[in-house]
Amino acid sequence: MRLTPASELEARYKKLQVLMEPAGLDAVLMIQSADLFYFTGSVQQGALYVPVSGEPLYLVRKDYGRARMECGLREVHPFKSPKDIPGRLADFGYPLPTRLGMELDVVPVALFQRFQAVLPEAKVSDATPLIRTVRAVKSAYEIDIMKDAALQVDKVYQRAKEVIRVGITDLELAAELEFVARKEGHQGITRMRAFNNELFFGHIFSGADSAAPAFLDTPLGGIGVNPSIGQGASYKTIKANEPIIVDFAGAFDGYLVDQTRVFCIGGLPEPLRQAYVDMYQIQNRLKEIARPGVTWGALYDDCHRLACELGYADHFMGSKGAQVSFIGHGLGVEIDEYPFIARGFNEQTLEENMTFAFEPKAVYPGLGAVGIENTFRVAKDGLKHITFSNEELVVL
Amino acid sequence: MRLTPASELEARYKKLQVLMEPAGLDAVLMIQSADLFYFTGSVQQGALYVPVSGEPLYLVRKDYGRARMECGLREVHPFKSPKDIPGRLADFGYPLPTRLGMELDVVPVALFQRFQAVLPEAKVSDATPLIRTVRAVKSAYEIDIMKDAALQVDKVYQRAKEVIRVGITDLELAAELEFVARKEGHQGITRMRAFNNELFFGHIFSGADSAAPAFLDTPLGGIGVNPSIGQGASYKTIKANEPIIVDFAGAFDGYLVDQTRVFCIGGLPEPLRQAYVDMYQIQNRLKEIARPGVTWGALYDDCHRLACELGYADHFMGSKGAQVSFIGHGLGVEIDEYPFIARGFNEQTLEENMTFAFEPKAVYPGLGAVGIENTFRVAKDGLKHITFSNEELVVL
Repeated sequence: MRLTPASELEARYKKLQVLMEPAGLDAVLMIQSADLFYFTGSVQQGALYVPVSGEPLYLVRKDYGRARMECGLREVHPFKSPKDIPGRLADFGYPLPTRLGMELDVVPVALFQRFQAVLPEAKVSDATPLIRTVRAVKSAYEIDIMKDAALQVDKVYQRAKEVIRVGITDLELAAELEFVARKEGHQGITRMRAFNNELFFGHIFSGADSAAPAFLDTPLGGIGVNPSIGQGASYKTIKANEPIIVDFAGAFDGYLVDQTRVFCIGGLPEPLRQAYVDMYQIQNRLKEIARPGVTWGALYDDCHRLACELGYADHFMGSKGAQVSFIGHGLGVEIDEYPFIARGFNEQTLEENMTFAFEPKAVYPGLGAVGIENTFRVAKDGLKHITFSNEELVVL
Repeated sequence: MRLTPASELEARYKKLQVLMEPAGLDAVLMIQSADLFYFTGSVQQGALYVPVSGEPLYLVRKDYGRARMECGLREVHPFKSPKDIPGRLADFGYPLPTRLGMELDVVPVALFQRFQAVLPEAKVSDATPLIRTVRAVKSAYEIDIMKDAALQVDKVYQRAKEVIRVGITDLELAAELEFVARKEGHQGITRMRAFNNELFFGHIFSGADSAAPAFLDTPLGGIGVNPSIGQGASYKTIKANEPIIVDFAGAFDGYLVDQTRVFCIGGLPEPLRQAYVDMYQIQNRLKEIARPGVTWGALYDDCHRLACELGYADHFMGSKGAQVSFIGHGLGVEIDEYPFIARGFNEQTLEENMTFAFEPKAVYPGLGAVGIENTFRVAKDGLKHITFSNEELVVL
């Protein structure tokens, strides 16, 4: 178990402060767990106040002792409710903010109103794009943790080869693989930022179920064990000659990696067999072109064009009518971070030490889906693998 | 796997409509997954529009086919974005709402603003108290599902007796029990409504770790496998003569139950042994007094007073300084529903077929925690158990 070093925390809030000045913000006030973990090392009930210059204040309602133990910031103080914030700021000689950033993509309206009521002079804007920009570029410390998470998903992949057989259900397979991950220190909770989005380890399903669309903004969805979940493994029984998808998020010491491999018993029918080869080719194209400085949208456009040239216009990244407009997603503390390897992101560019998952997938309704997914780090000269399991279609 | 019957859905939205009229609402617009599951039977990306009279409209962006398959409402229609709402309402002859209810406790500010922009005439207020009021009273259909979830946690309890031994870690124990639950159809995702609150199966921990406070509004917290999680099982090794807590949320076909049992190897030291007996006595007091018509706050006050009389003023429902002001919580689709058996709820009363978990617990920092938790249904003549595992302290 790692405690985030104080030097990491200092580098992080200073990067945020650099972005706050041109954005015209006096301060950013954060309350969401993923952001608190990143900027404080601890996920207590409380608020982190980052002024445009000077020390951040971590104000903690529950549990203050835990925050003191886990958080490497200098200023960690108890508070009871948003009402205490003006007084706390005065204690530190900080003026009340007039231009305040908050996480408007995740903070609920009612809670926002409580903060707004005690800071009535503050014009509040969305600080999440700045927070995401800081979080997108990982430190060596963060990348080391993601490598540990990659070891975890490799163990899941190895176990899948032992467990998969005709007659077990997708749910039984999922349970076996989740069990392995958990014993390897998987943290259980997999954070996803977008409203209503949730994920339980990943997506493990077979045959036609792997082509079932769902509510999530993901290329594959699955049926799930019931409609309240509506995604992932179901009670379907695994058969020979159908794709078995193991799309699994490793989660260790607060960081995520994402990997997909396809298994089958006795070989895949066409067009699925060829589609696996072609999705692998699209990953190779990505590796040829992804460099610091390339726009996220250019990566998407190039790989999407190749998918269309290869004949997947109606099958790429979802079944026709349910296709998503991305092929990859940044990840770290959350699974939907910057960069978005997605249509229309023509301004933002890859930077060294960004990390993202890339998941070209082809979907055939009634038949199934295939594809590959790896988590990469952007290096000076191109992509480096963080996930590393064997990339061939696994025929059992 | 159950699909919510149309008759259930109809009864639910009609109950909501009855509450909307005195609240002065023209309509309620819901977008959060738990509420969508309850009122539509399906959790797609979309919005449910419930007018004060007439048929609700379920407008679905992704995946419309899934919504058609899973939702028993008459009016299920595709839409692309909030911008389409005025047009869709016009299609059905519904006027634009002027007094609109939304889930302001969960809807993020940025998303709310998109809805507000297309319904500029609507004065929006928080519909969550009405939604929670409807959801608090369960139908026979819902209670049957919760009984299935209770079977699941009993299997977890039985397995715990086989698995617990000196030398395994809390995490290994958790992994074993999660594995059992999952094979029994546990849906994995355990929904909690409050901002930043999250739960992974429950809380499994031993000895001093069981007394560690955490950020969650729960009597026990635990250390967790890392500070990004900050709750639940850790890598601590189980020893003899310490409490081992198995606080586990069963989750089946969309519904939750919550049960806590305490295990130990070779008996507990004082004061923990006596505290278990006394927490059980507090559960008995609850059973004597809980009836339709009693206020939630009166239940809390009475049981809290008994805890103080028995000597637990500084140990009840958390360690001193980290005590929570509730002893029980409603549950169903989410684990933090009405009724709140909590301080200060002196107006709202128990009603027949409300369901709640009651969890008197005593905490001794450095030593550990003990207590009991069951999920009950309110019947005409008192409480009926939904969870039913043997209630004695399990000495192995």
